[in-house]
Amino acid sequence: MRAVTISEPGGPEALTWGEAPDPVCGPGEVIVDVVATAVNRADLLQRQGFYPPPKGASEILGLECSGIVSEVGEGVTGWSVGDEVCALLSGGGYAERVAVPAGQLLPKPAGVELATAAALPEVTCTVWSNVFLLANLQRDETFLVHGGSSGIGTMAIQLAKRAGARVATTAGSQAKLDFCRELGADVLVNYRDEDFVARVKEIGGADVVLDNMGAKYLGRNVDALTVGGRLVVIGMQGGTKAELDLGRLLAKRAAVHATALRSRPATGRGGKADIVAAVTHDVWPDVERGVIRPIVDRRLPMARAAEAHRVVEASEHIGKVLLVNEG
Amino acid sequence: MRAVTISEPGGPEALTWGEAPDPVCGPGEVIVDVVATAVNRADLLQRQGFYPPPKGASEILGLECSGIVSEVGEGVTGWSVGDEVCALLSGGGYAERVAVPAGQLLPKPAGVELATAAALPEVTCTVWSNVFLLANLQRDETFLVHGGSSGIGTMAIQLAKRAGARVATTAGSQAKLDFCRELGADVLVNYRDEDFVARVKEIGGADVVLDNMGAKYLGRNVDALTVGGRLVVIGMQGGTKAELDLGRLLAKRAAVHATALRSRPATGRGGKADIVAAVTHDVWPDVERGVIRPIVDRRLPMARAAEAHRVVEASEHIGKVLLVNEG
Repeated sequence: MRAVTISEPGGPEALTWGEAPDPVCGPGEVIVDVVATAVNRADLLQRQGFYPPPKGASEILGLECSGIVSEVGEGVTGWSVGDEVCALLSGGGYAERVAVPAGQLLPKPAGVELATAAALPEVTCTVWSNVFLLANLQRDETFLVHGGSSGIGTMAIQLAKRAGARVATTAGSQAKLDFCRELGADVLVNYRDEDFVARVKEIGGADVVLDNMGAKYLGRNVDALTVGGRLVVIGMQGGTKAELDLGRLLAKRAAVHATALRSRPATGRGGKADIVAAVTHDVWPDVERGVIRPIVDRRLPMARAAEAHRVVEASEHIGKVLLVNEG
Repeated sequence: MRAVTISEPGGPEALTWGEAPDPVCGPGEVIVDVVATAVNRADLLQRQGFYPPPKGASEILGLECSGIVSEVGEGVTGWSVGDEVCALLSGGGYAERVAVPAGQLLPKPAGVELATAAALPEVTCTVWSNVFLLANLQRDETFLVHGGSSGIGTMAIQLAKRAGARVATTAGSQAKLDFCRELGADVLVNYRDEDFVARVKEIGGADVVLDNMGAKYLGRNVDALTVGGRLVVIGMQGGTKAELDLGRLLAKRAAVHATALRSRPATGRGGKADIVAAVTHDVWPDVERGVIRPIVDRRLPMARAAEAHRVVEASEHIGKVLLVNEG
């Protein structure tokens, strides 16, 4: 099959549209003929050689996809050849075909175009597992999400508003903040010239913070928390090591969580199948009603993966950048 | 009434047995005639002027007591004059009488001497709220508690073993570790000459760590955690500020919680009344059956509070040091 391959770890130019072995359909898996995949920041790191795939995962990039089931493995029930699906992957989405554990499949939501559905799995599963299953965001609580115009950010704003929370968000331009407002964000902070701690404290502090900056924001995120607050770190774009003031954390009876979706086991407690099932049950109905929308910045053909990476690397996008198979 | 008063913040000698105004029984409160109180490390800090009581709390030391209800305030149901009780306090236990919100009273467990019952409220409420309600320690998980021979430690070992967890603990002498073994601890680490991280990793890492050292142990506690682990910091005997490696935390999908019992509100979600009700329901029956035991190091009269503080300051004790009212 054709797939995006990496000649040697490096810049976007390392990505080429070439040949790769067809995936094998193991027991409990299905093969999906990929219609589209989406770019995640983790792909950029993996391309540079910094984020090796977990054991047993495909070497090909791509943590999510949409497409059509073309083969059903031994022991799989509930899915048939021809089903339109999207899927959470451990890798392999930047290709014509991918093998997926059946527990990581979601039905394509009615009313969402098949290619567009590739924008949903990572952001819905990440936000649902971290903001709701882990941090347990409640109605009338205040939620702060950094990078509100990112794929994660746009979904986090929508799901938090649906839950009845007050939402504060940061972004780096007025255009991005305007988009966040349209999605329902209540407090908009341009991190280039405003202090998010001060802005969030004005409204009583954040009960839950979803953070992708890591070390750079650790102290300020703790400052922004209210009593009983939960900081969830899911990315480390601002480094990994920082001073934590436990005295301040204790005074707030607060918590710092750091999690990742990709390294979770396929099955078992807290595994990907559990999260996918919860998202299918708790989020999909409102995607089908149009209450929760996939936000797509642009679509590019798979052969232009390098260009897609440049867009994401420069943070030019709002929402997700898709890569589609043509023809 | 008589009470332990503090002439001026300082060493144990600052504590004197003197006169203080009688407590007033507010609505929703009862007055307890104190039979015994117990020394907590927080008392040592408060004596030195480092840990002021929360707003509205008594200035007198003492976070727990046992005794007899002598007055019942407006709106209190379920408690009567003459009831033998113990109580979680926001302060005021080092005295002849104390006012207590009714939600913080527990019945004296049958089979436990009334004075001895003063050893129970802080340790049961602290361990139950942190290790079980917050960190959700499960059967067959591994639990690490630092300072296993302390009041908290001796209760944590017992409750974790009752829950079917494997228990590792640290202490500073063989005599203390021997006592921890008698209570059921499986892995005993003398922190003076052994590395607790290595010992805990030998058994697969800790799912839950209960820590009283704060900054000094933060990095090592994170190292000792297993995937999905929860570190709960409830004391900062080793300082407050330390470097946190979020990358390491994220690789384990782990969490750092820091909490305190004293600053919790009396009522409301996660308040003291909730915790006391949970302990009464989930722990008291096994205290009455003798499965869970109060561990008392020694009893001293209230007038010898200074001596009691010296014992705790020097960590000479195993379990709780009680202060009793004589006559």
